[in-house]
Amino acid sequence: MKHVVCGIDLGGTNSPFGFVEKDGSIAAGSAVKTTDFGTFSDYVNALLDEIGKTQSKLKDTKIVGFGIGAPNGNYYTGSVQDAPNLRWKGKLEFAKMLTDKTGLPAYLTNDANAAAIGEKLFGNAKEMDDFIIITLGTGLGSGIYCGGRLLYGSTGFAGEVGHIVVDFNGRQCGCGRKGCLEQYASATGIKKTVIEMLAGKETESVLRNYSAEEIDGKTIHDAAKQGDKLALDAFEYTGEVLGKALANAVAYSSPEAIFLFGGLANAGEYILEPTKRHMENNMLNNFRDTVKLLPSGLKENTAAIIGAAALCWNEI
Amino acid sequence: MKHVVCGIDLGGTNSPFGFVEKDGSIAAGSAVKTTDFGTFSDYVNALLDEIGKTQSKLKDTKIVGFGIGAPNGNYYTGSVQDAPNLRWKGKLEFAKMLTDKTGLPAYLTNDANAAAIGEKLFGNAKEMDDFIIITLGTGLGSGIYCGGRLLYGSTGFAGEVGHIVVDFNGRQCGCGRKGCLEQYASATGIKKTVIEMLAGKETESVLRNYSAEEIDGKTIHDAAKQGDKLALDAFEYTGEVLGKALANAVAYSSPEAIFLFGGLANAGEYILEPTKRHMENNMLNNFRDTVKLLPSGLKENTAAIIGAAALCWNEI
Repeated sequence: MKHVVCGIDLGGTNSPFGFVEKDGSIAAGSAVKTTDFGTFSDYVNALLDEIGKTQSKLKDTKIVGFGIGAPNGNYYTGSVQDAPNLRWKGKLEFAKMLTDKTGLPAYLTNDANAAAIGEKLFGNAKEMDDFIIITLGTGLGSGIYCGGRLLYGSTGFAGEVGHIVVDFNGRQCGCGRKGCLEQYASATGIKKTVIEMLAGKETESVLRNYSAEEIDGKTIHDAAKQGDKLALDAFEYTGEVLGKALANAVAYSSPEAIFLFGGLANAGEYILEPTKRHMENNMLNNFRDTVKLLPSGLKENTAAIIGAAALCWNEI
Repeated sequence: MKHVVCGIDLGGTNSPFGFVEKDGSIAAGSAVKTTDFGTFSDYVNALLDEIGKTQSKLKDTKIVGFGIGAPNGNYYTGSVQDAPNLRWKGKLEFAKMLTDKTGLPAYLTNDANAAAIGEKLFGNAKEMDDFIIITLGTGLGSGIYCGGRLLYGSTGFAGEVGHIVVDFNGRQCGCGRKGCLEQYASATGIKKTVIEMLAGKETESVLRNYSAEEIDGKTIHDAAKQGDKLALDAFEYTGEVLGKALANAVAYSSPEAIFLFGGLANAGEYILEPTKRHMENNMLNNFRDTVKLLPSGLKENTAAIIGAAALCWNEI
């Protein structure tokens, strides 16, 4: 009998899940559409139906627990609270509902924390006790390991590096404050940088051929690959803001490595090189050359499921 | 037979020590003058002599270990490396030397970490797993507890909140960089703020009666107590910079409480009130009203010895 954990990635549009073995391989998977359901209860029932159907196609596979990565997910309560990209508001007791309906243990945390546990169990951080993962998607998420354990803090919400303010008079953030790191270092952030640069400079750029809507991490990366000066400047600026913020993060928790994951991290050296340079140039003496800046060892398309499952494997 | 830990506070000028019982009470103590010794080895021998003399005056007291708080102290190596305020440079293997000479366990960390452990064992953080202590002396030191354990990070130097840069174009710091938090929030920091304000404003102030040398945390506090506008403005500005930095620290590790300790913290509400207000005003939603800002529960004159001893009691 093969034991698997069902890792669930509760996303704003889709909720893919996968049966993840203890070595991190995915035995099977499917998804439900998050937006199809008017109530959270209907969503959970449909999700469990689909999980049941997927399991019935496999021989000798036993689900031993659930791991969930969710926006605004709180590990301590197993619930999701007022996630901006979900239609269901209030406190969604996701972990408890799964356990009540199946009798199996269920654990929940936010997406970036799940990625951190995935990196520790199945990625490039297996031998590390102190590291940070930075997920550069639409926003900037982070998961922080200290002394071999994920940092949750007193509220369960620790590790909000994306909402560390780097400029108190800076860009407006969705959180209501100004100058949060994710307004600079994320797909959204570099897009804003490019649009500001296009408006403020006369520099020739292939990015002038795109509408504001078409400009995203990928088009900026493509332009940089062609040697486009403005796109390269945008990566340089993003790396400067991120590198300085990471130097501050290092003064806080002194990680052995910082992993970059997700959308913007796919730009590889275009983002890694300036980030690393500015991080080192702004580092306190004690920490100089002590921190590796590395790409994540997780595959982008399965990381969320693997990370969510890792949370559960880590507990049971 | 009473068991005690010998807590040692290696300071630039003096090295007081005390025999600390498991409940935090001090059975006896004395000191040697740090600056009296040309070599570190001579210093250690004289220190052990004085410890022996002090012990011989007590009945039935057994030293079971040493705890040391030291500038630039590294818990992992038990050594002090190139501390700016000590004449002996290079790596001083303090913990190992004590153990070699006495056969007793010896543990070492920096002053602010020792204060954090003291706060946890003997102060106001006994029931807390996640908290930060900020020591506002000449500089700004910090010790961070996460999940019931002190945060050391991969290097042993984690928790350098005083060297988190709050303004990359800001005041010159002794570390060689610009705009470190301790250049604003410390006795040195508020003194710089006052001197800038005296130079830049026409405001009447009793502080104009002092030379730059005479202006310090105490004279500024005294002026504030008299209602001096400039002194009050200086506390307001210090609280603003510190409060914003603490809001960022909360986004990182989500503590239950932040304790202020030492020199500038003695100004009580003059520093606590503006710090708390600016911290809350700049807090990410998830963390609003989750963090208590409190005075330390340690007494200033014994905290360093108690904290150093707590480190050892925590281990043995």
